[in-house]
Amino acid sequence: MADNNKLKIGITHGDINGIGYEVIMKALEDEAILELCTPVVYGSAKIAAFYRKALELPTLPLNQVQQASEARDGHYNIINVVGEDTKVEPGQPTRTAGEAAMAALERAVADLKSGQIDVLVTAPINKHEMQSDTFHFPGHTEYLESSLGEPGEKALMVMCSEAPVLRVALLTTHTPIARVAQTVTAEAVTEKIKALDASLRRDFGVVRPRIAVLALNPHAGDQGLLGSEEQTAIIPAIEAVRKERIEAFGPYAADGFFGNGLFSRFDGVLAMYHDQGLAPFKTIAMNRGVNLTAGLPYVRTSPDHGTAYDIAGRGTASPESMREAIYRAIDTYRCRASYDEAHANPLRKQYVEKNKKDNVVLDLTRTDDK
Amino acid sequence: MADNNKLKIGITHGDINGIGYEVIMKALEDEAILELCTPVVYGSAKIAAFYRKALELPTLPLNQVQQASEARDGHYNIINVVGEDTKVEPGQPTRTAGEAAMAALERAVADLKSGQIDVLVTAPINKHEMQSDTFHFPGHTEYLESSLGEPGEKALMVMCSEAPVLRVALLTTHTPIARVAQTVTAEAVTEKIKALDASLRRDFGVVRPRIAVLALNPHAGDQGLLGSEEQTAIIPAIEAVRKERIEAFGPYAADGFFGNGLFSRFDGVLAMYHDQGLAPFKTIAMNRGVNLTAGLPYVRTSPDHGTAYDIAGRGTASPESMREAIYRAIDTYRCRASYDEAHANPLRKQYVEKNKKDNVVLDLTRTDDK
Repeated sequence: MADNNKLKIGITHGDINGIGYEVIMKALEDEAILELCTPVVYGSAKIAAFYRKALELPTLPLNQVQQASEARDGHYNIINVVGEDTKVEPGQPTRTAGEAAMAALERAVADLKSGQIDVLVTAPINKHEMQSDTFHFPGHTEYLESSLGEPGEKALMVMCSEAPVLRVALLTTHTPIARVAQTVTAEAVTEKIKALDASLRRDFGVVRPRIAVLALNPHAGDQGLLGSEEQTAIIPAIEAVRKERIEAFGPYAADGFFGNGLFSRFDGVLAMYHDQGLAPFKTIAMNRGVNLTAGLPYVRTSPDHGTAYDIAGRGTASPESMREAIYRAIDTYRCRASYDEAHANPLRKQYVEKNKKDNVVLDLTRTDDK
Repeated sequence: MADNNKLKIGITHGDINGIGYEVIMKALEDEAILELCTPVVYGSAKIAAFYRKALELPTLPLNQVQQASEARDGHYNIINVVGEDTKVEPGQPTRTAGEAAMAALERAVADLKSGQIDVLVTAPINKHEMQSDTFHFPGHTEYLESSLGEPGEKALMVMCSEAPVLRVALLTTHTPIARVAQTVTAEAVTEKIKALDASLRRDFGVVRPRIAVLALNPHAGDQGLLGSEEQTAIIPAIEAVRKERIEAFGPYAADGFFGNGLFSRFDGVLAMYHDQGLAPFKTIAMNRGVNLTAGLPYVRTSPDHGTAYDIAGRGTASPESMREAIYRAIDTYRCRASYDEAHANPLRKQYVEKNKKDNVVLDLTRTDDK
């Protein structure tokens, strides 16, 4: 963190032919953001200048730096990660744009790991134009799991919105429907409920999270008539985590759960697959959603939209989701810091038990820290 | 149709321990409905009286009749289909309630086939308590396909709302997720697009329907990276129907399609499976949705909610969806009648062609009626 207590927030430019620069610049117009952080954009000063002029974007003073440590407060700091001759073709998927996106991501991840930036926000990429020896992932989340996580650490994709409060985590992300059902095992559901519980506590500051688990099948399997995974995997997983005092409920049929507004009674929702969680989420959050990568040692967020080639270079893109992504990254960093501080030196637990005579007994002899 | 031009609308009481009677009586308070139709409830005068008293429901004069032809305009006409001693236990699933629901459904279907009623609206059932030799279906839709359809006629489930206008049809309805992908074939998608097109024209009066077809896989399969059914089934089906001048588009990734409001540009949407279509639909239509069974020779609608045992007998249920279901049934009956009238004696088609000299030629020699 910078000396002045402002977070350094790294922002990758994403696909240079999409709406990345536009939404980044528009989002950084928000003065409240600049009171909280110092932005460092990984991209190209020349491309930034191109979009600023083409779209007539008012923007902060542009400050080219060699590394994040040189970033100046209140400026649009930019680290050049591509050559001066990089060609911009708004609305076009190109290999050049893919390479530029990759260069930004690699440099930002390196800076995140070395502590030069505190959090990472990524603008949308076109993964088809990025595939190479070093990038062979279906998306940011999987790449970051591989490059930021310790071995065995799993990323959890959490889509979140503030108004209304809704956080939807996915059990399976980029899995074809034909393979979803076999992926829904009791182990997988248990693991993801725990990961969501941990994220709600540490990333969102929820003290005792209430988690709703969606069913896999229509009508929650209708007592086994329409599929068995509720009985074989989801219900056993819910029962298992409840024994560990995690407040998990369900499984709920997805259509009624969102249609009746039941989601508003929970701090988090675990959906079984991509469209089940994201179609209702995006319907409710309507371009204000943020994608948080939980479960890794570093904070990363992104807006919930794609490159939006169809409106690239027109100046009509809404920066709302990017702005929310920046706020969410800052909030998550701070939530984690205060959570870790609060839990760094815990008092030894004291056990209170009722004996058969209904007297309360304080047991000071137990030392297990479970 | 009755002599006074009002439609006779049959309404089954559904599960007598759910919110069926409550929403029926509340819906029929709407005087505008009674100007359009004469209601005939298939149920029990005694149970109706019980709920009216328990929930303090203002209601129309109750008129017990032996058959639908005796129904009186402006009355709450009721045909007793169960014995006087039928036990009502609000909130409880019981075998008795299942049998009562079945009795109402069988009588109403018989009256629909014999022309004693014009359209059918069904209150929600608990299908677990209805299973028997004559009812072994996952829901109303499948039962009606079997009992109302000619051999080979397929029902199409269309969920519809008026504000905003949204009609979502399902390719697969009560299919476990593990079996959904194998059901998505080019033949099935082609057939359902055509069925939806026909329903939009004949049931909704849309002259040239624009149909959106959703993808099966996340990100519409991402050009084959996340599943192949888009390439092997959905895109070929869309191309095939377009050759027959059906305006089908897609496949669209479900999350962005609803999240960006793209659905508002289409007259109908074909979803690949239950939760994909219904979770966003119910999120958008929020208890105002109607389930229309299209593709059969008779009109049937129902509200989009279930028995709602949790609030049964409390008087808090909203009749909005039931009211919309009644309106939708009346509208659909009238749309079909005027569509059929308009298409009963078509003029022979005249073919206009451009020849190579760019002159327009009216070809009066062709006689094919395609």
